[in-house]
Amino acid sequence: MKFSVNEIAKIIKAEIIGDASFIVTGVSSFEDARPDDITFACDSKFLTRLDQTNAGVIIIPDTFSIEKESGYHGIFLKTKNPKLSFFKLVSMVHPQKKLASHVHSSATIGKDVKIGKNTVIESGVFIGNHVTLGDHVHLMPNVFIGDDTCIESHTVIKPNVSIMERSIIGSYVLIHSGTVIGSDGFGFTQSSGTHEKIIHTGYVHIKDHVEIGACNTIDRGTLGMTVIGTGVKTDNLVHIAHNVKVGDNTLIVAQVGIAGSSIVGKNVIIAGKAGISGHIKIGDGSIVGPYTGVHSDVGENKIVSGIPHMPHGRWRKVVSIISRLPEMRKKLFSFEKRLKELENKNE
Amino acid sequence: MKFSVNEIAKIIKAEIIGDASFIVTGVSSFEDARPDDITFACDSKFLTRLDQTNAGVIIIPDTFSIEKESGYHGIFLKTKNPKLSFFKLVSMVHPQKKLASHVHSSATIGKDVKIGKNTVIESGVFIGNHVTLGDHVHLMPNVFIGDDTCIESHTVIKPNVSIMERSIIGSYVLIHSGTVIGSDGFGFTQSSGTHEKIIHTGYVHIKDHVEIGACNTIDRGTLGMTVIGTGVKTDNLVHIAHNVKVGDNTLIVAQVGIAGSSIVGKNVIIAGKAGISGHIKIGDGSIVGPYTGVHSDVGENKIVSGIPHMPHGRWRKVVSIISRLPEMRKKLFSFEKRLKELENKNE
Amino acid sequence: MKFSVNEIAKIIKAEIIGDASFIVTGVSSFEDARPDDITFACDSKFLTRLDQTNAGVIIIPDTFSIEKESGYHGIFLKTKNPKLSFFKLVSMVHPQKKLASHVHSSATIGKDVKIGKNTVIESGVFIGNHVTLGDHVHLMPNVFIGDDTCIESHTVIKPNVSIMERSIIGSYVLIHSGTVIGSDGFGFTQSSGTHEKIIHTGYVHIKDHVEIGACNTIDRGTLGMTVIGTGVKTDNLVHIAHNVKVGDNTLIVAQVGIAGSSIVGKNVIIAGKAGISGHIKIGDGSIVGPYTGVHSDVGENKIVSGIPHMPHGRWRKVVSIISRLPEMRKKLFSFEKRLKELENKNE
Repeated sequence: MKFSVNEIAKIIKAEIIGDASFIVTGVSSFEDARPDDITFACDSKFLTRLDQTNAGVIIIPDTFSIEKESGYHGIFLKTKNPKLSFFKLVSMVHPQKKLASHVHSSATIGKDVKIGKNTVIESGVFIGNHVTLGDHVHLMPNVFIGDDTCIESHTVIKPNVSIMERSIIGSYVLIHSGTVIGSDGFGFTQSSGTHEKIIHTGYVHIKDHVEIGACNTIDRGTLGMTVIGTGVKTDNLVHIAHNVKVGDNTLIVAQVGIAGSSIVGKNVIIAGKAGISGHIKIGDGSIVGPYTGVHSDVGENKIVSGIPHMPHGRWRKVVSIISRLPEMRKKLFSFEKRLKELENKNE
Repeated sequence: MKFSVNEIAKIIKAEIIGDASFIVTGVSSFEDARPDDITFACDSKFLTRLDQTNAGVIIIPDTFSIEKESGYHGIFLKTKNPKLSFFKLVSMVHPQKKLASHVHSSATIGKDVKIGKNTVIESGVFIGNHVTLGDHVHLMPNVFIGDDTCIESHTVIKPNVSIMERSIIGSYVLIHSGTVIGSDGFGFTQSSGTHEKIIHTGYVHIKDHVEIGACNTIDRGTLGMTVIGTGVKTDNLVHIAHNVKVGDNTLIVAQVGIAGSSIVGKNVIIAGKAGISGHIKIGDGSIVGPYTGVHSDVGENKIVSGIPHMPHGRWRKVVSIISRLPEMRKKLFSFEKRLKELENKNE
Repeated sequence: MKFSVNEIAKIIKAEIIGDASFIVTGVSSFEDARPDDITFACDSKFLTRLDQTNAGVIIIPDTFSIEKESGYHGIFLKTKNPKLSFFKLVSMVHPQKKLASHVHSSATIGKDVKIGKNTVIESGVFIGNHVTLGDHVHLMPNVFIGDDTCIESHTVIKPNVSIMERSIIGSYVLIHSGTVIGSDGFGFTQSSGTHEKIIHTGYVHIKDHVEIGACNTIDRGTLGMTVIGTGVKTDNLVHIAHNVKVGDNTLIVAQVGIAGSSIVGKNVIIAGKAGISGHIKIGDGSIVGPYTGVHSDVGENKIVSGIPHMPHGRWRKVVSIISRLPEMRKKLFSFEKRLKELENKNE
C-alpha cells in the first residue's frame, strides 16, 4: 500500500486537515498503528485521547471539532462515517482473491442441477438433485447441498456447511463454516410414553444480504417455513428453531437461542447468550440484553434484560439492589429488634 | 394429495362429524390452512377459536364436545391423539425418498468393515477399520466413522457428522448434521503449573430410537462409557460431557450442557439453555426449567428452576419479588425513618 | 495388560505398601474396578471410602497416611500425583495407533505447500496454497486448511474441522471435530439503516500444547490477531470472538462465550456457560464461576460469580437470600402493620 493523503481523501470523499502530500503505507487499529499508518476514531472512546495513537493520519467524523490541545500532531481526514470509510480502504488494500470458475473433479453433482455463470464448486462438495445455483456462487470444500435447494447469485458457503433439502438461500449471502441450515426441528408427540417423531415438511428461507456465523443451527419449519429476513446478521453458535421468523436487518449475537415459532421484528438486537421462548413476538427496533431470558411478548422499541426479562431500566435498579441484599436483610432483622423494643415500651 | 374424508377417517381411525365425501387436497397448520386442507387442534390454544382456521377439516380430540356456537362450519374428525393422527397423514403425503443401496466411489472404507443389506454410503464418507454397519444404515456425505465403531440397523447419519472410534450406535437412530460423537472429555491433571492431558479410553453408547440434534457434542467416557438411553431426543447445540448417563425417553432442549459423570433419569425434560453440574443425579420424571443451573441432586418427579436451582413454585414467587425489589428497598428505607421518629417520641 | 506391582512401581516411581508380586491385569475407575485392576484415589471424595472399591491396587498421594481401619485390604502405591501416575499407566496400556505417513489420493493439495516428515493427510482433506505443515502433523478426514496457514509439528486436527486462511497453529496442538478456526468476527457498521460488513484482515494464532474442544468457534482478528496462549484447554461449544487474547494455561469450560477484544490472563478458569463481555480484562489466576456474566474488568486471583458478576463470597450470600425473598417480603409487610399500630398509639 502506498497512497498520498490526497489520493485517500478522493477515494473516501474526505476533507483534509493537514499535509495532503503525506504518504500512507498501511491501515491499522488505533492502538497498533505506526507513524505511516492510517486509522480511524469514531466515538468518544477514541476521540478523547487522539494523542495516544502513533498513526500519521486519523479519519474522524465531520461533526467533530478538533481542539488545538488534542495533543495529536498528525493529519485528519473528516468523513460522515469514519468506520465505513476506513474499512473501504482496508478492503481496497486487501482485495479478495478471485478463484477461476470451476467445478472440482471430486464434487458430486446430482440430476437436474442448474449452475449459473462464474460459479466455483470446490473439492468434496455434494449437490443433490434439482438444485439451482445462481451466478458467482462459491461453494467451498466439503459443503453439502440437499435436494431441491436454491442458492441465488453471489452467495458464498464456507467449508463443512450442511444445507439440507428444499432450502432457499438468497443472493449476497455468506454462511460460515460448520453451520447447519434446515435440520429437523425438535418436534415430537407423546404416544404411550415414548416420543414419536413428527415429520418436518417445511423449509428454511434465508433472504438476501444475510450473514450467518459459524456453527449456527437453523431448523426447517415443521409445516411452512423458517425465515431469516434481508440483511440479518448472526454471530457464532446461534440456534434458531422451526418456524421462527426473523425480521430484516436484525442482529443476533453469539450463543443466542430462539425457540420454535417465535417472531422477531426488524432492526432488533439480541445480545449474546440471550434466550427467546417459543411462540412469542419481539417488536421492531427492540433490544434484548445479554443473558436475557425473554418469556413473553416484547413491544416495539423496548429494551429488556434479566432472567426472566423486564424493562432494562428496572433491571439495572434490581441488579444494583441484588448485590446489596445481605445488607438489606441485616437492616430488616435490626428493624425487628427495634420494633419489638418499641412495642414493649408501648404495652 | 387427494383423499376423501372417508378415506382419511379409515387411515387414522377417526369418527367423522360432517360430510364424509368431502375431498381434501392438502395438510397445513391451523393458521395457514386453505378451504381444501386438513389441519388439527389438540389443546385449548386452538380448540377455543375453531372459527379462526380456514381448513375444511379439523382433527380434534375424541374427548372434545363440539358446541354449535363454535362458529366453525367444516368437518370434524375425532381421534385419541390428533397431533399423531395429523402427522401420520403428513408423512403419507410426503413419503421419504428411498435411495438405492450403494457405496459411492469416493467413500473411503477401512479394513475388516462389515456392511449390512440395503445400506447407503454417500460421497466423501470415511469409515475406519473394524466397523460394523447394520441393514438399512444411511451415511450421508462427508460423515466420519472412526475405528471399531458399530452402527445398528435403520440408523441415519446426516452430512458432516463425526463419530469417533469405538462408538456404539443403536438402531433407528437419527443424528443431525455437524454433530460430534465421542470427542475426548475435558480431562486434565495439573503437573507443575501446566495441564497434562489424561488419555480417554472410554466410549459413547447411544441406544435405539435416539434422535440427536445438529451440532451436538457428546464426549466419550474417560474410563467407561457415556450412555444415551433408548428414545432420548436432543435438540441443537447440546453438550453432554464424559461419563454422563441419560435415562430412557428423556428430552434435552437446545443449548443445554451436562457436565461430567452426571446421571439424568428417565422421562426427564431439560429445557433450553439449562446447565447441569458434574457428578450429580436428576431423578426420573423431573423437569428442569429453561436457563436453570442445577448444582446438586434433584429427586424424582420434581420441577426446578433458577440459577442456582430451587423448587419451581418457590422460584416463581422469588422471580415476581425480584422485579419489585426497588419498591421493597424504598419501603425498607421509609420504615427506617418511621422507626426513628417513633424511637425519638419514646425516648 | 499384565504387570506386577513391582514393575508398575518402577514405571510410575511409587512406594509399595503391600505385595509387590501381585499381578495387575487392568486399569479402571474407582467404582468399576475388579480385583485384578489398579485404580487411583487423589482427593477426600475417594480417600475417605477406600473400602468401597474392589481394585486390587490403589495409587494414593504420598502425603496420605493410611489408617488401619480404612477397611481396604489391597495394595497401595504412593506417588506425588496419583492421577498423573494412573493415566501414565492408562496410556501405556492403550498405546495410540500409529498411522503410516501418507497423503490420501482424495486429498486436494494447493500450490506451494510444504509438508514435513511423517505427516498423515487423510481422505477428503483440502489444503489451500502456501500452507506449511510441520513434522508428524496429522490431518484427519475432511479437514479444511485455508491459504497461507501454518501448522507446526505433532499437531492433530480431527475430522470435519475448518481452519481458515492465514491461521497459525503451534506444535502439539489438538483440535477436536467440528471446530472452526478463523471465521470472520461479528463486525458491521451501520450505513443508512443496514449493516455493512467490515473486512476482517486479521488472523488466529494458537500457540503450542493447546487443546480445543469440539464445535468451538474462534474468530480471526478484525485487524491484528486473536491469540490462544500456550497450554490453553477449551471444552466443547466454546465461542471466542475477534481479537480476544487468552493467556497461557487458562481453562475454558463448555459453552463459554468471550466477546470481542477481551483479554483473559494466564491460569484463569472460566467455568461452564459463563459469558465475558467485550473489551474487558480478566487478571491472571482468577476464576469465573459457572453461568457468570462478566461485564467489567476482574483483577488478579479473584473469584467471581453471578449475572452480572460480583465477588464469589458475596454472591453465595446473595444467592442464599434470594431463595428466601418471599419470607423477607412477608416480614416487611408485617412490619408495616406493626409500624402503623405503633404510630396510631403514639399520635
